[in-house]
Amino acid sequence: MTIAAALLMGLIQAAPAAPQTPEPPTPASIVAGAPRSDWRAIPAADLLVMDLAPEGGRPRRVFIQLVPAPFAVGWTANMRRLAAAHWWDGTAVVRVQDNYVTQWGDPTEKKPLPPGIDPVPESAYVTSLDAIGDARPAIGAQDLPEMSAVARRRADTSIRGTVTPAAPQGWHERDSYAEWVEVLDGWPLAADKTSAWMPHCYGMVGVGRNLSPDTGTGAELYTVIGQAPRHLDRNIAIVGRVISGMEHLSSLRRGTGDLGFYKTPGERTPIVRVRLATELPAGERPAFEYLASDSDSFAAYTAARANRRDAFFNRPAGGVDICNLTVPIRAVK
Amino acid sequence: MTIAAALLMGLIQAAPAAPQTPEPPTPASIVAGAPRSDWRAIPAADLLVMDLAPEGGRPRRVFIQLVPAPFAVGWTANMRRLAAAHWWDGTAVVRVQDNYVTQWGDPTEKKPLPPGIDPVPESAYVTSLDAIGDARPAIGAQDLPEMSAVARRRADTSIRGTVTPAAPQGWHERDSYAEWVEVLDGWPLAADKTSAWMPHCYGMVGVGRNLSPDTGTGAELYTVIGQAPRHLDRNIAIVGRVISGMEHLSSLRRGTGDLGFYKTPGERTPIVRVRLATELPAGERPAFEYLASDSDSFAAYTAARANRRDAFFNRPAGGVDICNLTVPIRAVK
Repeated sequence: MTIAAALLMGLIQAAPAAPQTPEPPTPASIVAGAPRSDWRAIPAADLLVMDLAPEGGRPRRVFIQLVPAPFAVGWTANMRRLAAAHWWDGTAVVRVQDNYVTQWGDPTEKKPLPPGIDPVPESAYVTSLDAIGDARPAIGAQDLPEMSAVARRRADTSIRGTVTPAAPQGWHERDSYAEWVEVLDGWPLAADKTSAWMPHCYGMVGVGRNLSPDTGTGAELYTVIGQAPRHLDRNIAIVGRVISGMEHLSSLRRGTGDLGFYKTPGERTPIVRVRLATELPAGERPAFEYLASDSDSFAAYTAARANRRDAFFNRPAGGVDICNLTVPIRAVK
Repeated sequence: MTIAAALLMGLIQAAPAAPQTPEPPTPASIVAGAPRSDWRAIPAADLLVMDLAPEGGRPRRVFIQLVPAPFAVGWTANMRRLAAAHWWDGTAVVRVQDNYVTQWGDPTEKKPLPPGIDPVPESAYVTSLDAIGDARPAIGAQDLPEMSAVARRRADTSIRGTVTPAAPQGWHERDSYAEWVEVLDGWPLAADKTSAWMPHCYGMVGVGRNLSPDTGTGAELYTVIGQAPRHLDRNIAIVGRVISGMEHLSSLRRGTGDLGFYKTPGERTPIVRVRLATELPAGERPAFEYLASDSDSFAAYTAARANRRDAFFNRPAGGVDICNLTVPIRAVK
């Protein structure tokens, strides 16, 4: 057993999943009661801070977390360079299509890119399970049932079907778009027997592109504002997610042109600036945490999302879609 | 074979699913090419017309289609009475919670209801397959494979699992919340072996309620503006869907109070009036059609939604979530 797994098992024994209340716990009460040790910091180096033009004097700040390696590293490297070059300053939200996406970038499509923006191959739309496992050496086959589904798959390729043996009680993994799904290191993941990819859930950020073999640079981005358009999975790079300020992108006026593009420049929402959080002065730097996917709190949260038993609910669902298993994220001082 | 089924089979032989194009058809091209006979009128008697206060001089009109019998008839009867009494006039949108719901009704919660508003039992959250089958006598077990999954279930209760035998090629019916799903008479449906219910997809309209055994009257309503909150299925009545003007509800400023309620009355969006379409002057009366679920066009549309093969896509998904299988609806003159 690895040290990480031993610590994890200790946590499971030491910390009750939720405070004892007369009513069954809700997802919210489980999150509120999660011990400090079940939260993991989101590195400032992975955070983009995007300021839209204020509306009626009110600031509109959006925080985007970049996906961690080994996912989408070509695009996120480009995005770090674009942010460092302040390339997005003066660009705009150009498209809002209802129940689909809000998209932003350079409206002229002619702004020169900074040096070092490299093309990324289409093969990077998915990431091999081996690469994911290699990036997480602390988890191995001997650590069942705490190990992730990725590790289990690597250890036993005969595991298949729609139910993960160690999944929290009552969580169906029936998914219309992938052989299996899980939450790993705070991110939703969809996979087949050999590779995984991040699904197009609400708030996820993807890379606009032209026709194949173009894969986009990372300069043109969109976020999902409706039912997860999972048919885009494996066809477009997912490079991040909005972790705060999503309402500033989802509540924008819908465009009335084709595909929700604005017909006139005046309808666009100006982007004042985009910065990597590490470039901000220390006092202005945001800090966020996510509820650790391998914590007992997250297991209890998942079970409660799949089977609501608090007073409002007559019938627990018996399952939860991967895009409804929103990972709890909180701002910290 | 019934007359309806014979006509249907004739259509399938006579009408190609999509115009012949050099590129594989897209969902949009299939809908555009669907023959006139594949469209069904939405009865004006099932349409609510809701006018929000204009914004910047622009009208904001929302069209809501009520679910047909035998679904939710207690609530929709109440809603027809509320509309006839002009009860919603002067009410307001009171809550907008991001990635969840926009909700409207009487902010005071004290406005007297008109006569004839009856409570509905919780048993009506679902509808028995027998009742659904009885309401559609033209479809019977002898009509395979054109018959719906409801009819197939009634004819052969041994059919189970995740794939409907007659489902369009490549459409996975793996659903996290129900044993099976289908589109029936233009509506998404989720079901188990004995009963069915309408899922909480984007744009569906549900009835706000208090704790059990309260089921709501139909006076307080909400629509889904994010990832389908399917855990509400079978716990709240679904009574309709927004078929036009959804952007007026989905793009409203999110409320900053608990659960997205607005903190101040001034933030609410006033509802000027709500009318049944049949009450409007003939010239003002809207007319909509939906693409018939049992048409060859819809089968082709479903297959294309599940497996996009047009130039933008590298990898067809191999499946489609019931809430992503948006039923094509169009306004007609």
